[in-house]
Amino acid sequence: MLWSGWGDPARAAPLPEPVVGLLRDMLGVRPAAAPPVALARLKVAAPRLAGADLAGLAGIVGEGNVRSDAESRVRHTRGKSTPDLLRIRAGETSDAPDAVVLPGSHDEVLAVLRLCAGKRIAVVPFGGGTSVVGGLAPQGVDAFIALDLRRMDRLVSVDEVSRTAVLEPGLRAPAAEALLAERGFTLGHFPQSFEWASIGGFAAARSSGQASAGYGRFDDMVVGLTVATPEGSLDLGRAPKSAAGPDLRQLVLGSEGAFGVITSVTVRIRPVPEAREYEGWRFASFDRGAAALRRLAQDGPRPAVLRLSDEAETMVGLADPSAIGRPGESGRPDSGGSADGGPPAGCLAVLGFEGTPESVAAQRAGAADALRAAGGEPLGAGPGEKWEHGRFNAPYLRDSLLDVGAFAETLETAAFWSDVPKLYEAVRCALIAALAGAGTPPLIMCHISHVYPSGASLYFTVVSAQGEDPLEHWDRAKRAANDAIVEAGGTITHHHGVGTDHRDWYAREIGPLGAAVLRAVKDRVDPAGILNPGVLVPPAPGE
Amino acid sequence: MLWSGWGDPARAAPLPEPVVGLLRDMLGVRPAAAPPVALARLKVAAPRLAGADLAGLAGIVGEGNVRSDAESRVRHTRGKSTPDLLRIRAGETSDAPDAVVLPGSHDEVLAVLRLCAGKRIAVVPFGGGTSVVGGLAPQGVDAFIALDLRRMDRLVSVDEVSRTAVLEPGLRAPAAEALLAERGFTLGHFPQSFEWASIGGFAAARSSGQASAGYGRFDDMVVGLTVATPEGSLDLGRAPKSAAGPDLRQLVLGSEGAFGVITSVTVRIRPVPEAREYEGWRFASFDRGAAALRRLAQDGPRPAVLRLSDEAETMVGLADPSAIGRPGESGRPDSGGSADGGPPAGCLAVLGFEGTPESVAAQRAGAADALRAAGGEPLGAGPGEKWEHGRFNAPYLRDSLLDVGAFAETLETAAFWSDVPKLYEAVRCALIAALAGAGTPPLIMCHISHVYPSGASLYFTVVSAQGEDPLEHWDRAKRAANDAIVEAGGTITHHHGVGTDHRDWYAREIGPLGAAVLRAVKDRVDPAGILNPGVLVPPAPGE
Repeated sequence: MLWSGWGDPARAAPLPEPVVGLLRDMLGVRPAAAPPVALARLKVAAPRLAGADLAGLAGIVGEGNVRSDAESRVRHTRGKSTPDLLRIRAGETSDAPDAVVLPGSHDEVLAVLRLCAGKRIAVVPFGGGTSVVGGLAPQGVDAFIALDLRRMDRLVSVDEVSRTAVLEPGLRAPAAEALLAERGFTLGHFPQSFEWASIGGFAAARSSGQASAGYGRFDDMVVGLTVATPEGSLDLGRAPKSAAGPDLRQLVLGSEGAFGVITSVTVRIRPVPEAREYEGWRFASFDRGAAALRRLAQDGPRPAVLRLSDEAETMVGLADPSAIGRPGESGRPDSGGSADGGPPAGCLAVLGFEGTPESVAAQRAGAADALRAAGGEPLGAGPGEKWEHGRFNAPYLRDSLLDVGAFAETLETAAFWSDVPKLYEAVRCALIAALAGAGTPPLIMCHISHVYPSGASLYFTVVSAQGEDPLEHWDRAKRAANDAIVEAGGTITHHHGVGTDHRDWYAREIGPLGAAVLRAVKDRVDPAGILNPGVLVPPAPGE
Repeated sequence: MLWSGWGDPARAAPLPEPVVGLLRDMLGVRPAAAPPVALARLKVAAPRLAGADLAGLAGIVGEGNVRSDAESRVRHTRGKSTPDLLRIRAGETSDAPDAVVLPGSHDEVLAVLRLCAGKRIAVVPFGGGTSVVGGLAPQGVDAFIALDLRRMDRLVSVDEVSRTAVLEPGLRAPAAEALLAERGFTLGHFPQSFEWASIGGFAAARSSGQASAGYGRFDDMVVGLTVATPEGSLDLGRAPKSAAGPDLRQLVLGSEGAFGVITSVTVRIRPVPEAREYEGWRFASFDRGAAALRRLAQDGPRPAVLRLSDEAETMVGLADPSAIGRPGESGRPDSGGSADGGPPAGCLAVLGFEGTPESVAAQRAGAADALRAAGGEPLGAGPGEKWEHGRFNAPYLRDSLLDVGAFAETLETAAFWSDVPKLYEAVRCALIAALAGAGTPPLIMCHISHVYPSGASLYFTVVSAQGEDPLEHWDRAKRAANDAIVEAGGTITHHHGVGTDHRDWYAREIGPLGAAVLRAVKDRVDPAGILNPGVLVPPAPGE
């Protein structure tokens, strides 16, 4: 993972010159003042851990599994939000952990937590390091360690009868898929962070993948969990569903390391589908397209992948940056172009079907009937396959945008279908007002990528010039968007999580008693308050 | 509701004489020593509430909505488990509430809870009164009130776009279905208690209906909740799904009145299906039938109703008591009878399909292919329709069995598919050993009635003679069954709930830290400990 950006540096792709020109002409993007600081030149403060503490940790996990060198610490500093990248590119390492600790088992995690609780050393569980909500930057701590779970990366067992698998938290998603594929199974969980994210992170952050319409969210897939806390272990899930009290699995899912460290996850698995087919459809407007998606989500057939870009995202053709600025190519509809040769009107929907060839054919036919009735125009396989090809590329694109001096970030929410139109408008308006007011008018794009019978998610991408102080400039816009989300009745996050960034709005979403319940749970499992301090759990009034 | 049994007394049906003979010959059932005490002759202890307390409650909910007459109190005494019925039939009213209070709104519930918290008066939320796990019999309390929610019985609103409806907790299920049907919708939740149970009870107890394969469990249907607690209100659910922290809705669902009183429930609704078709299939054994159900649960098509009786339940033909003892009738397979004219071998499966006529036809065809491949033999519509006709009758049958001196009770569990065979055997053996050892050898019947991709429920029905002391005799058998469930890896309850009856085994299921988390939540929302004391939440060690 690139310490200052996303993914494999060999896959970085500079933006084509026409795109740079468009960014300059449309958004006023100018080259950034300074290139990123080189890794070797980054300075990190001296670790705040005593030698005895480091020795105690090494006594648990082994000498080589406690690391306090600068590079290890930099590579575990914060996550992958755009503010995170801007800070680290500028050489700002104030949130670096004092050490990186790599446990090898549940018992080692337990022992580390007990040691740290006794010494008031904060612990930040670290999986793929892909948080975009400040989930890896604890607040109000003295010393803290990053508890990197990469050594716990086994596929522990597969139950082919029950179609479940036990996975360790440090297993990365591609490795999990590869190990399951050897047995003929798939998890079917493909979020945009797929190539780097870990199983434990999916569970801790309630991840939702691009095929959620067909496979469900990660929290739908989890049927069992083991959790280590400073106060002992939880071992949850004796049946897919139960009436034995509240579903405590659902209290751990989404707990973002604040209640404990997830040390194993039992997930539902499915046979690898024989066939996967993608296709594109065009709708005259985002509203019309959303109504069509709602029709499929409510009455079926429901494809595995179901998404819809709004007019702006369709026009820009985000899936294929090499074609940005060249109408008629990329994932955009290649019909319906305006008379003056400008970009075609409308919104692109992408559908992906999985199953046997017969079931895929039947689903495609059923969906086609429904989409045509809803005003859709079929675009064939091309746009769908292009989306599929580029599905994990957006974070690379962001690096390229930052490199040329643009600002690019995403945010997301979800609501019931009735509230989706007003939520869409409210967030767009808030972002435009805040950024235009700061002198950096943005391009705002949006898509629906997760649908349910009763509602859907909205995922916004914001591109603008960086302005004088891009961190301050985004902070203001993000706050305005968060306020708009809460006021329009949406949830503050559909799949990125709460972290530190969303905590104040999350407190508004769940109300004072909901926040008090979270604090009560945290106080019970983590009385010393060492687990990811400042993340998720709203502070008590007056704190 | 019959105070001493189930349902509408006009629908009670005495057992036919051949069945009574069979019970006598097979199980040694003898007429009970004494008929039930008459309602008018029941004695109830003097209420333990001061006049000022009753006046305070009346000041909140209105004079006519605080009742302390004997009949009101008897009608709110315990629930509908067989031990509950045996006790009340014997005139044992020690668990009667001191008063019945009927609030009319969320704010009235809040005010009642605050008053009761201040005065240490326990509060037992009361919906349909159908608990079979001791959920209405608080432990270790002085005075307590039954908070009967029947006045809060509105369909508050329907959102036809999002396909959701807001329901009040005291709405009974048939009334909810009738109100939704006026708008063209159904909830699709039909547990055996359907005719009497309430919406709030479904949520509080994580109910699962007979059509759970198609419509999901009640906890799958709930997208929003409002809860009143002594410490304030919770208002949860801004989107179908969210990554904003743990799903707090899933902490309220299954909380059985111990964390608060659910005052409104937002549920997913669906259009009333155009077609409903039921059919029967025969399998050579329970194992073979279970494998066929698993195949449908994992690969589809999944009918709305999917259930399988074991050999004993199939032979007895529980669905139609009028035909018990007459082989070849009832819901039993009418083919494959043994050469000597005895009952046919094998296991009956019932499938119910819902949707458009076209989708029902397609699903039936797909399911038939799968079931034939799994060794099933189609029995046509007859057995399915007979099951559908008698689907809510079993509790009436139990009253008739008690009347002739038999003991009848049910218990249920769930597990992952791999564990289902050993769980089935373990529970059967435990029940047989305990009851045969007590001199009352039982008839044990079982069915699978809820299936998931990764597992299924097992629902056992036990019939025996009552023996000398039926309460003690059942207590011993039930404890043995509970131990067997926990040891075989099942959950202590799939849909009946925890109540007081399952609490000790529930504590084993979630472990000491899980129990401590529940206590932490309860202490936060109910510091005075007035909410359903003794129900659900395991006591702290040493308490």
